[in-house]
Amino acid sequence: MVQLGLIGLGKMGFNMRERLRAAGHEVVGYDRNPDVSDTTSLEDLVSKLDGPRIVWIMVPAGEPTRATVTELGNLLSAGDMVIDGGNSKYTDDKLNADLLAAKSIGYLDCGVSGGVWGKENGYGLMVGGAAADVEKAMPIFDALRPDGPREEGFSHAGDVGAGHYAKMIHNGIEYGMMQAFAEGFELLEAAKVVKDVPAVIKGWQRGTVVRSWLLDLLVRALDEDPELDDLEGYVEDSGEGRWTLEEAINNAVPAPVISAALFARFASRQEHSAAMRAVAALRNQFGGHAVKKAGG
Amino acid sequence: MVQLGLIGLGKMGFNMRERLRAAGHEVVGYDRNPDVSDTTSLEDLVSKLDGPRIVWIMVPAGEPTRATVTELGNLLSAGDMVIDGGNSKYTDDKLNADLLAAKSIGYLDCGVSGGVWGKENGYGLMVGGAAADVEKAMPIFDALRPDGPREEGFSHAGDVGAGHYAKMIHNGIEYGMMQAFAEGFELLEAAKVVKDVPAVIKGWQRGTVVRSWLLDLLVRALDEDPELDDLEGYVEDSGEGRWTLEEAINNAVPAPVISAALFARFASRQEHSAAMRAVAALRNQFGGHAVKKAGG
Amino acid sequence: MVQLGLIGLGKMGFNMRERLRAAGHEVVGYDRNPDVSDTTSLEDLVSKLDGPRIVWIMVPAGEPTRATVTELGNLLSAGDMVIDGGNSKYTDDKLNADLLAAKSIGYLDCGVSGGVWGKENGYGLMVGGAAADVEKAMPIFDALRPDGPREEGFSHAGDVGAGHYAKMIHNGIEYGMMQAFAEGFELLEAAKVVKDVPAVIKGWQRGTVVRSWLLDLLVRALDEDPELDDLEGYVEDSGEGRWTLEEAINNAVPAPVISAALFARFASRQEHSAAMRAVAALRNQFGGHAVKKAGG
Amino acid sequence: MVQLGLIGLGKMGFNMRERLRAAGHEVVGYDRNPDVSDTTSLEDLVSKLDGPRIVWIMVPAGEPTRATVTELGNLLSAGDMVIDGGNSKYTDDKLNADLLAAKSIGYLDCGVSGGVWGKENGYGLMVGGAAADVEKAMPIFDALRPDGPREEGFSHAGDVGAGHYAKMIHNGIEYGMMQAFAEGFELLEAAKVVKDVPAVIKGWQRGTVVRSWLLDLLVRALDEDPELDDLEGYVEDSGEGRWTLEEAINNAVPAPVISAALFARFASRQEHSAAMRAVAALRNQFGGHAVKKAGG
Repeated sequence: MVQLGLIGLGKMGFNMRERLRAAGHEVVGYDRNPDVSDTTSLEDLVSKLDGPRIVWIMVPAGEPTRATVTELGNLLSAGDMVIDGGNSKYTDDKLNADLLAAKSIGYLDCGVSGGVWGKENGYGLMVGGAAADVEKAMPIFDALRPDGPREEGFSHAGDVGAGHYAKMIHNGIEYGMMQAFAEGFELLEAAKVVKDVPAVIKGWQRGTVVRSWLLDLLVRALDEDPELDDLEGYVEDSGEGRWTLEEAINNAVPAPVISAALFARFASRQEHSAAMRAVAALRNQFGGHAVKKAGG
Repeated sequence: MVQLGLIGLGKMGFNMRERLRAAGHEVVGYDRNPDVSDTTSLEDLVSKLDGPRIVWIMVPAGEPTRATVTELGNLLSAGDMVIDGGNSKYTDDKLNADLLAAKSIGYLDCGVSGGVWGKENGYGLMVGGAAADVEKAMPIFDALRPDGPREEGFSHAGDVGAGHYAKMIHNGIEYGMMQAFAEGFELLEAAKVVKDVPAVIKGWQRGTVVRSWLLDLLVRALDEDPELDDLEGYVEDSGEGRWTLEEAINNAVPAPVISAALFARFASRQEHSAAMRAVAALRNQFGGHAVKKAGG
Repeated sequence: MVQLGLIGLGKMGFNMRERLRAAGHEVVGYDRNPDVSDTTSLEDLVSKLDGPRIVWIMVPAGEPTRATVTELGNLLSAGDMVIDGGNSKYTDDKLNADLLAAKSIGYLDCGVSGGVWGKENGYGLMVGGAAADVEKAMPIFDALRPDGPREEGFSHAGDVGAGHYAKMIHNGIEYGMMQAFAEGFELLEAAKVVKDVPAVIKGWQRGTVVRSWLLDLLVRALDEDPELDDLEGYVEDSGEGRWTLEEAINNAVPAPVISAALFARFASRQEHSAAMRAVAALRNQFGGHAVKKAGG
Repeated sequence: MVQLGLIGLGKMGFNMRERLRAAGHEVVGYDRNPDVSDTTSLEDLVSKLDGPRIVWIMVPAGEPTRATVTELGNLLSAGDMVIDGGNSKYTDDKLNADLLAAKSIGYLDCGVSGGVWGKENGYGLMVGGAAADVEKAMPIFDALRPDGPREEGFSHAGDVGAGHYAKMIHNGIEYGMMQAFAEGFELLEAAKVVKDVPAVIKGWQRGTVVRSWLLDLLVRALDEDPELDDLEGYVEDSGEGRWTLEEAINNAVPAPVISAALFARFASRQEHSAAMRAVAALRNQFGGHAVKKAGG
């Protein structure tokens, strides 16, 4: 059994602490919210761990993660290790690793998938960093990953950054898969040839080519709300989809499906986009086509 | 100078009659609306024309055009000719031509572009049918088409149907061009790096690669309403875009731009699409991501 | 145990006969290939079945299926039933059902998913037709579908045509999912940030959001050929993707992901498409940009 | 008449010098190629200009432009001005302006459109920077821009960077327009309903909605090569399309047409993309569908 510091006890971090403790590991958790925190400060957290320490960061990507790494750099000692398990951009990892390496502190980046179900099912993990560091943290990874063969729920993807890179691409694929199901659902709803749409989708869970966890979740959602009309078609995006598209640009890789899925989310948050007002204006100009007047 | 029967005096037909008369041709127009009609019935129209007659149909595509062709088949005589200048699907033309050919009545299909500006600028014409029939109707085409070399505003595209086919593809391209300008406009509006968006777009009218009639119309629209916020981003589509995409499917031709332009119109008419409600539901299922409750 | 006539013993039909027989049902199979056929003709097949008969058609969609239905209409008796399990277009089903109904022969359409794995795993089934007919054929469906709860591998989707409609949409979704994985794979390959691409993809099989049967198959393919370079990126399409896009057009449903997946297949089969030659020509015209001369 | 230093005498710069001289301005041009250069070094160029000097840079974007700005910063004097007319990314402009401002040297960025035709037709210009600086350079802009009203071929788009931003969006639109024409051309070629494709496209030049300079260029290309089969469908991209898509991502603006046009170029340069090999592999795995073996 190992000892772990865990910073960030939100939806993901909180559940991960549960899963790690259920596996018998000792977890000292820190969160700004004292109701869930085991300790009062990062300094206190570090003091409660025996060296060589492993500290897992599970805070929002960008500035919060960066600040936490910086602070840990000041608190930890040579031979300790930091793992960033948040949804960081892979280019941040090199900066973090370099900052810590200057103090002989190790660094791994770990993409974590599985959402709120991870506590029960385990988390899919993609790790970047040095093999020796990965080896040191393996008991943690083994506790977090799903049961079954390690290589089916865990990968050492490459050097620092490769874990988050793999997670980013994972999420890009996820965007495309979700949009594929979404388009199929809308077509079934619109055409009304299929009478019992939820039954058809439920019936895809076994034997079909599209069987998948996302399909299982769609079935679950339809069980709760058969026409999904309790909610608005307003969809946020969280970074990885955009970064995946940036990678497509940078590598000259066509990504029509992933970009379409991302743009559908952008469009879902717009009312009367400037683009479509321009198309309406053009049609009105050349054809005298009727337009809907705003506020009309 | 020739004599022409013209059926359908809506936005397009009315203006075409004006342009033809201005060119010195005799036009007997019929419309269900007596305020604009020169005659009381198709029968009356036919009786007012000397043979061999040419009758131009300018009524909505589909059933109305089909019914008009059928009725003309009963009223006209061998050696007469019908021209369908409406936005018919090219597959309708073969049916029309065969029906009329059985009575030795000629048939041409003519795609007409130019919108409300055609009266002044002339109409771009794409014609399908037999060369001899095209020759007979050439004075009409010459009056309707823009000034300048005939081959720059008129084409004999091929056999019956080819005129409407060419017009369909023209409109598919038009969809793509409009959407390209629309996306550019939205980007300029959103990013706010450019301070004077209408000035930039106006400045593209000369010397640039994107100079075009659609750009001129966008400038005109922005002159009237600099942020295009007097109208909603709600855009109809009128058939040709859909048919173009069907042709892409039938011929295994990738048409990502034309389809994207068509889908943007579809989406512009939706609120809370089933697809995006499905994506929101999935995100909620796996990540516990917040959703906007309908009516919330 | 029931008795079934099965016409068409190709990859799918052959395996279905095996699965049905393993479940204890009596199957009389017919195929033009005498090596696999149990009988010499449709006439002979019909004579070997006790009434009321059930005959399952598993031949190519379109003309072959239509011809088989017509022939069965002449051979079967009132009270018999035909099930079309092929990949027919849903609009064909009404024609088939009407033809057979005129002779008091029942008709069901059944979308069948699962490919070559169905023999072992069972087939996902989506059925259209009258409830009483579905009930009669349920022992067959129960033998073909996967183990587990019936409603997770079988659905009665609606009236005649709804089974094939559901299968068509299923395949449209499948196109989108495959393309999503494909884009992700290409990005991983291109960027080279991830060192061991097959390991990362294998590691997605448990715990992640993208876990799915298609992912399992991708892992299997990568086990056999880690860079997938034993084969060409030339991909056929088989009808359902095109029909799904037609439905999107007909119902004004945006389908950017499914269309992108279809167009990627179209493009995969082209060399030097006319479209991209046109773009190259335009760039050359305005910018003097170098072009690659054909055959150069 | 004014005096101008012009650095970079490639396809664009060379022609601009011609147009400026034809308008009566004095141009001292520098290029690394002594055959076209008026002077032997930047130092020499600067020495040949009377103060306050205006120096126009027309060298490749990125490092070459940056190096030239830096060198000019060392050679020019307070009150002089630099104009970057190359295809720089708009974010570079702030860096350039700041570098020069530290020495009291002014800076404008100018997007220049028009390609090889600009010498004759004039160049579409989009300028970013301070109004006073724009005023000083106006004689230059007036000589370079097309004849006609200034505001139709020139815009002061905003602060430093806005000129290149406007040019970037212009090029994004251009990508979409070109792809729209390209798809239409391919559809006409593929369907063979239209017998004389070049005649139809030529006939779109007057009166139609799609009339545009790009269409004129397509007509010109088809006049030279009616099926465009002298060249390969291999299309480069030059930066602005990618940057436009990055802006779409950064501003959450859906850009399905511009991205599709960019991806079509990426795909045009691939043979057997990893993505389509993955789709082929998946189809083979689940369906036993035949694949084309590489090198087969």
